[in-house]
Amino acid sequence: MVGQKLARKLAADGDIGGEAISELILQDIVEPADVEAAFPVTRMTGNIAAAGEAEKLAALKADVIYLLAAIVSGEAEQDFDKGWNVNARGTWELLEAIRQVGEGYRPKLVFSSSIAVFGAPFPPRIPDDFFSTPLTSYGAQKAMGELLITDYSRKGFIDGVSLRLPTVCVRPGKANLAASSFFSGIIREPLNGKEAILPVADTVRHWFASPRATAGFLTHAAELNLDMLDNRRALTMPGLSCTVAEQIEALREIAGEEVVKRIKHQPDDAIIAIVRNWPENFEARRAEALGFVAESDFRQIIRIYIEEDLEKA
Amino acid sequence: MVGQKLARKLAADGDIGGEAISELILQDIVEPADVEAAFPVTRMTGNIAAAGEAEKLAALKADVIYLLAAIVSGEAEQDFDKGWNVNARGTWELLEAIRQVGEGYRPKLVFSSSIAVFGAPFPPRIPDDFFSTPLTSYGAQKAMGELLITDYSRKGFIDGVSLRLPTVCVRPGKANLAASSFFSGIIREPLNGKEAILPVADTVRHWFASPRATAGFLTHAAELNLDMLDNRRALTMPGLSCTVAEQIEALREIAGEEVVKRIKHQPDDAIIAIVRNWPENFEARRAEALGFVAESDFRQIIRIYIEEDLEKA
Repeated sequence: MVGQKLARKLAADGDIGGEAISELILQDIVEPADVEAAFPVTRMTGNIAAAGEAEKLAALKADVIYLLAAIVSGEAEQDFDKGWNVNARGTWELLEAIRQVGEGYRPKLVFSSSIAVFGAPFPPRIPDDFFSTPLTSYGAQKAMGELLITDYSRKGFIDGVSLRLPTVCVRPGKANLAASSFFSGIIREPLNGKEAILPVADTVRHWFASPRATAGFLTHAAELNLDMLDNRRALTMPGLSCTVAEQIEALREIAGEEVVKRIKHQPDDAIIAIVRNWPENFEARRAEALGFVAESDFRQIIRIYIEEDLEKA
Repeated sequence: MVGQKLARKLAADGDIGGEAISELILQDIVEPADVEAAFPVTRMTGNIAAAGEAEKLAALKADVIYLLAAIVSGEAEQDFDKGWNVNARGTWELLEAIRQVGEGYRPKLVFSSSIAVFGAPFPPRIPDDFFSTPLTSYGAQKAMGELLITDYSRKGFIDGVSLRLPTVCVRPGKANLAASSFFSGIIREPLNGKEAILPVADTVRHWFASPRATAGFLTHAAELNLDMLDNRRALTMPGLSCTVAEQIEALREIAGEEVVKRIKHQPDDAIIAIVRNWPENFEARRAEALGFVAESDFRQIIRIYIEEDLEKA
């Protein structure tokens, strides 16, 4: 989903930092959706962890590489081998294949990391210099990716940066099995005339950015002079810290009480236990100083969903 | 060197946490020195990163595993492939081989990490929750090892802990090519009637523990109930923060002015530049609360060298 938003933004922008995009190559495990653009768009299908795949991708010698591919949190937790193979080994193999190209090839590489590199207990606002203590295999794999990106960059093989993305909200499309699914569901489903289940108390606080802001983080990262990062190439992205009650209040203001009534509170102990260990708030000072921008009000996040995705549903 | 100190301590102790040691198996890339003990000692030679080696070691089904093997900092920086292969891939392969043993096999595993997981700039005293920002490949590889140890432990495949060891001082034996070599050299060489070069200003501050304290960290770690660590299984070990001037003053008190005169100040810009990025001081509160103990005075460190290693030189 983030990849599609990014591809459409690149098509709309037409350039990265003033340099015209000459070609866009999309690869995913399933065939990527087409994107209309003024430049050629090539779509490829492949598993980044399969033999020969990293070499094939590196041989394309793209100037900018977005590495968003990942087994998601829940699946990586259930399938230990798959998560470590794709998220960790796949990332490492791509970096190594890039290094093996040689001939001075040093692409800019933007890696989608996650706030899952952090694990409870947390301070009230997690500072930029807080340690990585993942409580999931997914988080550990992302943290390992960050270490690799930084060391391959320091050695001059890539020019990389890892962006720790907030929870993307409102996700378009259908609910999925992720424990975080309800944060989008309680907004999306009522706006589409459907019922939504809220499995946690409305005092739960979490860290959000819209799909639009997330795509913006990715394009902004590719435009930065990453040498400014001084070998600290993992950045916590800015976001909006708000409670479920604040989410619901914003929905009420925008769509009215009848829409809000479609949210049913149905406590789920399993989800409550998982969400209890999730981060609530960050400082993200470094990223803000570098010009990364997220929403500052949950109403903006809802309006972006209505503008970009509601009509298509 | 740390491995030998540890092996001798295990032989002297005869037990780990009250449980008698029935056998000690030593493996190194070169044949390990023999150790006299009341239990059988097996010595093996092998490269942990070679094919089949991790499986061979895991098949021994040791109850306690000390993973000290590593390409040192300087060599890992010069030989990118070798460092990543041995320090990172070798560690991963050993953990994976242990997991593949199955049948409920879940050894205690003590991994020697390093303060090299931290990179400047630092706060005056680095707290336990400070982030890992390695500035060397060696540091990145150790940080990756920590992530693996923690995730394999969380999933129940091992019961592991990573100890971030201080700079070991006074190292016995000959000077080596490590940039940190002089911290031991300025004590060891004068005590042995030889000249020593001090390549940095005597205001440089660093973080030390004796070989004896270091072996003590390793045995203590194997005796702990690691579930207390609550999935934060990387621990900064306690140490002594002191300046080179304090080192020299301690040497003067113990050995006199004539011995101190054997230290020649000969500034080396390359070493000055490297050492500038090294940590000076830590809080290490978690490890102290868990009963890990280091020296509190540099004179103790010198006396330990004189007791344990000077006569053998």
